[in-house]
Amino acid sequence: MGFKESEEQLLSMVATNGGHGENSSYFDGWKAHDRDPYHPNQNPEGVIQMGLAENLLCHDLMEEWIRKNPAASICTEEGISQFRAVANFQDYHGFPFFRQAVAKLMEKVRGGRVKFDPDRIVMSGGATGAQETLAFCLADPGDAFLIPVPYYPAFDRDFCWRTRARLLPIHCHSSNNFNITKSALEAAYLNAQKSNIRVKGVLISNPSNPLGTTMDERTIRTLLSFTNEKRIHLICDEIFSGTVFRPPHFISLSEIVESDPECDRDLVHVVYSLSKDLGLPGFRVGVIYSYNDEVVACARKMSSFGLVSSQTQHMVGCMLADEEFTSNYLAENARRLKERHEVFTDGLRRVGIRCLEGNGGLFCWMDLRSLLKKATLEGELELWRVIVNEVKLNVSPGSSFHCAEPGWFRVCFANMDDETTVRALRRIRLFVNGEIEKVEEKKKKKKNRLDEGLRLSLPRRFEEDMVMTPRLMTSPHSPLVPATI
Amino acid sequence: MGFKESEEQLLSMVATNGGHGENSSYFDGWKAHDRDPYHPNQNPEGVIQMGLAENLLCHDLMEEWIRKNPAASICTEEGISQFRAVANFQDYHGFPFFRQAVAKLMEKVRGGRVKFDPDRIVMSGGATGAQETLAFCLADPGDAFLIPVPYYPAFDRDFCWRTRARLLPIHCHSSNNFNITKSALEAAYLNAQKSNIRVKGVLISNPSNPLGTTMDERTIRTLLSFTNEKRIHLICDEIFSGTVFRPPHFISLSEIVESDPECDRDLVHVVYSLSKDLGLPGFRVGVIYSYNDEVVACARKMSSFGLVSSQTQHMVGCMLADEEFTSNYLAENARRLKERHEVFTDGLRRVGIRCLEGNGGLFCWMDLRSLLKKATLEGELELWRVIVNEVKLNVSPGSSFHCAEPGWFRVCFANMDDETTVRALRRIRLFVNGEIEKVEEKKKKKKNRLDEGLRLSLPRRFEEDMVMTPRLMTSPHSPLVPATI
Repeated sequence: MGFKESEEQLLSMVATNGGHGENSSYFDGWKAHDRDPYHPNQNPEGVIQMGLAENLLCHDLMEEWIRKNPAASICTEEGISQFRAVANFQDYHGFPFFRQAVAKLMEKVRGGRVKFDPDRIVMSGGATGAQETLAFCLADPGDAFLIPVPYYPAFDRDFCWRTRARLLPIHCHSSNNFNITKSALEAAYLNAQKSNIRVKGVLISNPSNPLGTTMDERTIRTLLSFTNEKRIHLICDEIFSGTVFRPPHFISLSEIVESDPECDRDLVHVVYSLSKDLGLPGFRVGVIYSYNDEVVACARKMSSFGLVSSQTQHMVGCMLADEEFTSNYLAENARRLKERHEVFTDGLRRVGIRCLEGNGGLFCWMDLRSLLKKATLEGELELWRVIVNEVKLNVSPGSSFHCAEPGWFRVCFANMDDETTVRALRRIRLFVNGEIEKVEEKKKKKKNRLDEGLRLSLPRRFEEDMVMTPRLMTSPHSPLVPATI
Repeated sequence: MGFKESEEQLLSMVATNGGHGENSSYFDGWKAHDRDPYHPNQNPEGVIQMGLAENLLCHDLMEEWIRKNPAASICTEEGISQFRAVANFQDYHGFPFFRQAVAKLMEKVRGGRVKFDPDRIVMSGGATGAQETLAFCLADPGDAFLIPVPYYPAFDRDFCWRTRARLLPIHCHSSNNFNITKSALEAAYLNAQKSNIRVKGVLISNPSNPLGTTMDERTIRTLLSFTNEKRIHLICDEIFSGTVFRPPHFISLSEIVESDPECDRDLVHVVYSLSKDLGLPGFRVGVIYSYNDEVVACARKMSSFGLVSSQTQHMVGCMLADEEFTSNYLAENARRLKERHEVFTDGLRRVGIRCLEGNGGLFCWMDLRSLLKKATLEGELELWRVIVNEVKLNVSPGSSFHCAEPGWFRVCFANMDDETTVRALRRIRLFVNGEIEKVEEKKKKKKNRLDEGLRLSLPRRFEEDMVMTPRLMTSPHSPLVPATI
């Protein structure tokens, strides 16, 4: 951040220790996009944003519902009689009908195989706020949560920055599709013990961000029995649960808990949000669902720092209470995600790029290992800089997800329209073909090869872009960084 | 909180240390109201809520504006074209027009005597979130802020709970209307030094909560020069700035800062919110206005934990951008508050109750010292229990505001309609007259007096209420406690 020495003493350690984690290629990619954003007409050579796990595929369904239900808004003739009661509402339990509607949605996403008690639902400012709240409830400074790598970069901000807790990796590998094994769990726990770090829990995301895969029942049971045995917490971030678009179907931690009378529910907590499944990140609707009474009570008190706007609770609560709407929405959302995922992965496959076999999420975990000059972190970042600055696609390198194996990239596919998808695939195709041509050319002209340094040469199609490529640097004052993924 | 020993180890110290401060008569009064809320028809003998600093006097003005401006909502035919852009908006800077409109409102509240830069406005989840964010930016665990007593009880939660910072009192006295003196400031600072506590700043509220008074220019200048001299921060909570209803007019810290070229702006921070001035606590619109670039940058990153819903930003931003509306609103709000304040304080005066001379806020600082049996904290709480349980008015005892002088009570007057105000005044009159009668009766029948223990006898009018009075106790699981004051 570059504080002057005298200023460092004025502010706190939290403010000055860089724990927010913004100095990461994950966020740098966003900034590159923000400086030169793609627009089909105004800036067709700009950076296409594929680093943002947004779901823009089903807003039309919500718009249709809203048009038909004007009373759901406190700003319409039909709904304004509720204005003053809603505007003045400041109960940190939230509107009961809002919590009931969210619980119903969570049940529906899980195929009705599990029940949620609305009284265990605690509001928070998005999943971001939910994660931090749980960390504050469960961990003291210095305590750790174990987490399988790769994992969502902003977990460092959410779980560690202000709480001073830590995340310690559970090592997962491409050789078994990044699944979590019992031995990796044990090794991570043992490592912490050796370093005298108290482990307070295990944190997982299911469907996984960034893998785009759901967790199988056996793995969830392994995690649950492991955490029970060690008397530590199990937190499952299920914010992508409504994005599962093909088998195997999503299995929630809640289902396993309900089927296991032996398990200690006081150790189990689920995070949910409407930002991904419903594509409503601006509304900041996050929830904690804890099976531990004391955590519910404490998190509810903490929710004062990030309550959901009562205007939004009211509207969203009315919408989700319409079960016919939510059933249709979830089915159509899955259908559209499946279609887009197929178009996208087919396009990649045609140029020889494969992804980890995914069935959920708003992204693919793309394997570009064959394109690395060197199978190192630096080699990965070198390729990433080319993709962002020259191919003009903001994808996120695996290293920003703490992945130990270089060459994996997360690429989002549901935050754009069909035309942009085609455009992005075309850029990838030209790039990869160019790379292949280049390799062949190199073989031919080996003796004339110049030192290309850190820069890879590009097919002609992209050369013009390079002139206007801004430098990738951190802008400490006003990074136009979205709040979540 | 009553955790079992084994559970204590499962949760964090923050979760189990009681630092939220909910076990206070301030919150207990709310709970008493929640268990037996007054309703003119359904429960006319219930507890009248006078412990909640709400502003319900001007919602009709907003409703009128909303009816005339349907395009300001994303849920109307006129505004729905904005739905998807708004719903998906997740930039933590906030909508530029929203920040501009909030800056304009803040200028208008200060009579146009000061300018605010929209780029220094950082969103937060209400003032609650703003205060905590500032504490995280400025203080390390163990560091302290000095604060004049009496002060808003939930500052303990906001400034100390999760940040582990502390608040240390600057002692103020009724003898000079609770003004802050230079010597009290120096003494508080010296006390901290003696205890080896690092002081990081001074925190004030202007207009003061709970005093209902504005701070004079000289005091603000004293505070500013004191904090500058010590190289510590000055945080001013100005969330009641738009409630000043009679002279002297409100002087913002910002005005003094702008008029003082010598002052170090890096040490100055203002908190604002729409919960009080506009009566919109449910919308959770809080802001930090910091003159320190690094604090702006850091607080903006922290705002991810409590962003304002984009639906609310959009609507409120449109409304506040209408300067004719805001001018009219502020004038009418002040007029109605003045009228209500007069009715209320006149009613009290007629039964011999005086209040600190106030000119802002949504409450009076009521002097009931003459009604205390003993001039002690216990005497104050004894009287308070009678007022809450038997007179059935939830007022807040001074001790819950850390006031060292027993016998002062904060009583809110803008959160009810005219009829309820009359009813509340009638209860107070009957109670006070009963107390006077009782004293006279006691003199007559001195020899027959029974030991009344902690209970004061009441005029007959209230005896029936006592049968249904619930026990005042802390309900740790589900206290129906609003999020802010």
